[in-house]
Amino acid sequence: MSETATRSVGRPPKMEAPRERILAEATRLFSRAGYEATSLQEVAAAVGITKAAVYHYFPTKQVMYETIVVDLLNRLESHVVANLTAPASPRDRLRALMLAHADFFEANYEAFVTLLHGVSGLSRKITEHETQVRDRYEKMVRGILNDGARTGDLHVADVRATSIAILAMLNWMSRWYKPRGSRRARDFAEDFFVLIDQGLSPRN
Amino acid sequence: MSETATRSVGRPPKMEAPRERILAEATRLFSRAGYEATSLQEVAAAVGITKAAVYHYFPTKQVMYETIVVDLLNRLESHVVANLTAPASPRDRLRALMLAHADFFEANYEAFVTLLHGVSGLSRKITEHETQVRDRYEKMVRGILNDGARTGDLHVADVRATSIAILAMLNWMSRWYKPRGSRRARDFAEDFFVLIDQGLSPRN
Repeated sequence: MSETATRSVGRPPKMEAPRERILAEATRLFSRAGYEATSLQEVAAAVGITKAAVYHYFPTKQVMYETIVVDLLNRLESHVVANLTAPASPRDRLRALMLAHADFFEANYEAFVTLLHGVSGLSRKITEHETQVRDRYEKMVRGILNDGARTGDLHVADVRATSIAILAMLNWMSRWYKPRGSRRARDFAEDFFVLIDQGLSPRN
Repeated sequence: MSETATRSVGRPPKMEAPRERILAEATRLFSRAGYEATSLQEVAAAVGITKAAVYHYFPTKQVMYETIVVDLLNRLESHVVANLTAPASPRDRLRALMLAHADFFEANYEAFVTLLHGVSGLSRKITEHETQVRDRYEKMVRGILNDGARTGDLHVADVRATSIAILAMLNWMSRWYKPRGSRRARDFAEDFFVLIDQGLSPRN
């Protein structure tokens, strides 16, 4: 975000890691009240700095929001990729991806709500940068499915629809799952994996 | 909604089915700009009536929104139930439910976006009435799964997680599916059914 810094205005606040604190408070507010209902003034107040200090780092609320979601998607990818180094088979890699994704979702719950439900309606503009990171992640999921289909490890009737279904199960958790409940997000991800792995039709 | 009518103010507009027209325009606006960013004044302008005329039917924007989502959920249930009379086996009923749900979603796309993404963040209050209709629908899905588990028609490792996964696949379509594309919503629902029916592990 050095482009932003060079164009920024306002005076930097005197605290440690101000940019990170601004993003953390903004994420909390966006996830609760939504993007539209949250003002930069409220973000500034939550951090305990002036609105001008916020402007020093983020010229607009839109840039702040995009920073949160692109950062989240990049960290999700890194976290999941780090969990895919050990499992050898496509089937084990798919399971590892789903569990790692669920773990990361639970640890970053408010940022996921901000990403997936922070802006209401169909009006949200998705930047090219965000689209790139999303596409890369979806390509990784499809890559595992394609590997499994090629090796015979997985029977995939439709790679695209299967990839969409997997991400739907994981993404929709942001709508109903509450962190720190009796069951971890990864427990549900394990259930989802068993469902799509074994299928509902009884095996002989 | 007769309770509302008796408490209403303002003068009724002179047009056919004004209440239905108000709800249709509100749904369109909520689905595009979101609940927060849409005012009753904008709804009135879209219908071509006064704000007072809108108030005659809906005392608040909240009541208008709740009317849209509860009506949608009730109609979804009726549509799906009507499609479940013929199929005999739990497996066929599950498939019929998923296809009918997808058809109804596509035909009521803007209302689904309003229901599932009309309000941003975690702040939306869900009324008891809406909760009842949702619970009834989820219970119907779980009922089919339980029937299948009992008769041996379906192998269900976890009824609750399976029900959540099915609704996640269908609900998440509201986020990525665009009506009137080259593939119908029911085509994707069919793919999702094949996935959870057959599973990814090869069958011998």
